[in-house]
Amino acid sequence: MMRVPFEKLKAEFKKVLFAINFTDDRADQIAAIFAENSRDGVYTHGLSRFPVFVDFVKQGLINVDALPTQINGIGALEQWDGNLGPGMLNARFAMSRAMQLAGDNGIGCVAIKNTNHWMRGGTYGWQAAEAGFISISFTNTIANLPPWGGLEPRLGNNPLVIAVPRKNGHVVLDMAISQYAVGKLKQYESNGNEPLPLPGGYDSAGELSTDAHAILESKRLLPVGFWKGSGLSLVLDLLATVLSGGNSTARITQNEHESGISQVFICVKPVNNEQTESLINEIINYTKTSTPEHEGASISYPGEGTLKTRERNLKEGIPVDDKIWAQVLGM
Amino acid sequence: MMRVPFEKLKAEFKKVLFAINFTDDRADQIAAIFAENSRDGVYTHGLSRFPVFVDFVKQGLINVDALPTQINGIGALEQWDGNLGPGMLNARFAMSRAMQLAGDNGIGCVAIKNTNHWMRGGTYGWQAAEAGFISISFTNTIANLPPWGGLEPRLGNNPLVIAVPRKNGHVVLDMAISQYAVGKLKQYESNGNEPLPLPGGYDSAGELSTDAHAILESKRLLPVGFWKGSGLSLVLDLLATVLSGGNSTARITQNEHESGISQVFICVKPVNNEQTESLINEIINYTKTSTPEHEGASISYPGEGTLKTRERNLKEGIPVDDKIWAQVLGM
Repeated sequence: MMRVPFEKLKAEFKKVLFAINFTDDRADQIAAIFAENSRDGVYTHGLSRFPVFVDFVKQGLINVDALPTQINGIGALEQWDGNLGPGMLNARFAMSRAMQLAGDNGIGCVAIKNTNHWMRGGTYGWQAAEAGFISISFTNTIANLPPWGGLEPRLGNNPLVIAVPRKNGHVVLDMAISQYAVGKLKQYESNGNEPLPLPGGYDSAGELSTDAHAILESKRLLPVGFWKGSGLSLVLDLLATVLSGGNSTARITQNEHESGISQVFICVKPVNNEQTESLINEIINYTKTSTPEHEGASISYPGEGTLKTRERNLKEGIPVDDKIWAQVLGM
Repeated sequence: MMRVPFEKLKAEFKKVLFAINFTDDRADQIAAIFAENSRDGVYTHGLSRFPVFVDFVKQGLINVDALPTQINGIGALEQWDGNLGPGMLNARFAMSRAMQLAGDNGIGCVAIKNTNHWMRGGTYGWQAAEAGFISISFTNTIANLPPWGGLEPRLGNNPLVIAVPRKNGHVVLDMAISQYAVGKLKQYESNGNEPLPLPGGYDSAGELSTDAHAILESKRLLPVGFWKGSGLSLVLDLLATVLSGGNSTARITQNEHESGISQVFICVKPVNNEQTESLINEIINYTKTSTPEHEGASISYPGEGTLKTRERNLKEGIPVDDKIWAQVLGM
C-alpha cells in the first residue's frame, strides 16, 4: 500500500475540483475535507469516494456554486435549503450556523433540505468539538436496509454523529445504523470473502450470517441491535425529513440517486468548561477500568483511534488505494 | 394470568402511595404513570416495578415531597436539580418545561441532575407527542453493560426515547442500549431458560449466546450493534452528565443504588403541521411496503404495537403477575 503526504493528496483533489469549476476557495475547502477523511483513516469517504463525488458533479446532481438559503427561522430553530450544493460545504455551514444559534440561545438547531452526501459525518462532529460545542447531527440516505421483519430495503442507514469537546481528545461517535456499511461488506467480499468478525446481515436462507457476499446478494444488511436499529433509522429519517421539510428516504430512493437529502445539526454550549472537563474524564477513566477481554488490548472511547491514525498518517503519509490514486492523478 | 381493570390498578397504587406520604395529587400522578405503563404492555416498568419504587421511598432514596429547582438557564437551555424527588414527576416536569422552551424558541432543552428512575422512558415521549412536540430524551443508569472489548460492566444501558407526533398514532421509539434488558433476560431464564430469539450477550467462554442464564452469570450483556452501542451508551452518559452537571454512570455505580441520576429532554416544535403529517405518513407507508419475512406478518413502526396493546388491555383488563399483584394488595 502506497502512502502519500497529506498536502499532496489535498493538492491533487483541489486541482481536479478546480477543473470542474469550483472556485479556488470552495475547491480548497472540499479538497481539505476529502484529504482529512483519508488522514483520519476513513478512506471510504476520503480518496475512495472522491471519484464518485466528481462523477455526481459531472452528472449535474451537485451544483458547484450553490449556497444554502434560509427558508424559515423560529428563535433557535432554523430551516435551510441546501440548493443541491456540495454536501460537505452545506454541512459545514449548517453546523457553524447551529453553533451561532447555540451561542445565542444555549441550544441551536439547523435542519437543511436539498443537500448532498456529507461524506464522513464525523467531520462535522470534529468541527463543533474544536469550537467547544457539543453536537448531535444526522442525515438520511437512500434506502439500503430492510426494516425489521422485512425483506427489501426501505430504510437508510442514516448516520448519527454525537460529539463532545475534550481537551485531551474530543469524543466523536460517528455511526451508521447498519452494522456494517455496504462499502465495508464489499471490502470483505473482495478480500477473498473473508468472514465478518460478527454477523452483519442475513443470507438468502434468512440465517444470520458473517458471509459478506451472501449479505450483499440478499441485500438484507443488519441494523444495529436488530429491531432497535430498525426503529432508530426510521425515527432519524422522520426527524430529518420533518424538521427540514425535505426529502425522506422514500423520496430519495424513488429519485434513484442519493441527492437532495435531509440533515439535522443540533449544537449545545456546555455551561461550565472546567467542570465539564473533569466530568468527561471521570466517565472515560471509569470506562477504561473494565478488564480487556484480550490481553494487551485496551478499552477505547469513540474518536480515540482516530487521533492515533491521524498522527501516524501525518507522519508516514496517508495510505492510498493504488488504482484510485492513479485514477485521480489522471483526472 | 389474571387481568385487572385500569382504574382498579391505579386506585391500588394510589392507596399505597398515599400511605407512604405522597400528597393526593402526587400519588394520583404517580399511580397513573405506573398503571399506564402496564396498560401499554410495559409490565416491567408498571406493576412489576411498583414494589421496588415503594422500597426506594422507604429507604429514603426517593424524596416524597421534593420538587425540581432551577440551577441555570441560558435562553432555550436550562439546568435543573431534581432534589432526589420521584423520577417520574421530575421527568414529566422536565419534558413540559422543554416544551415551553421549544414553544418560545423553536427548540428547548432541559437537563436535570439528582433525579430518579423515570420507569418507562416512553411515558415522556408520549407526553410530548400528545402536546404536538417532537422530543429526544435520555437518561443514564447504573453500570450494567461492559464497554466493547471489556469484561465488567462500566456503561449504563441509558435508554433513549425519540418521539414524533402523528394524528393516527404517534411514533415513539423507546430503546435501552442493551440488546435485552436485565429484566427481560430474567424472564427468559425463569421460563425454563428458553433461548433468546437472537444473541443477547456473551457466555463465560466469550461466545455470543442466546442462553439468558449464561449471560446473566457472565454479566456480559450485549450493547445494540456491538461496538456501536457501546460508543452510543458512552456518549449518552457524557451528554446527560455534562449538560446537567450531575452524576455519571461511574458515580451512580459507586453509590451502589440507582439514585441521583442525570437526564436530558430536548423538544422541537414542528414547523408546519399539515406538511409534517403527510411527510410522516409517506415514510411509514413506504417502510411498510417491504415484503414481510414471515407470511401474515406486517412491518410496524415504533409505538404501533403499544396502541394495540393499550386498546386490548383497556377492554379486557391489564394482565398482572399474580404474586406481585397480591403483594401490592397487601401493602
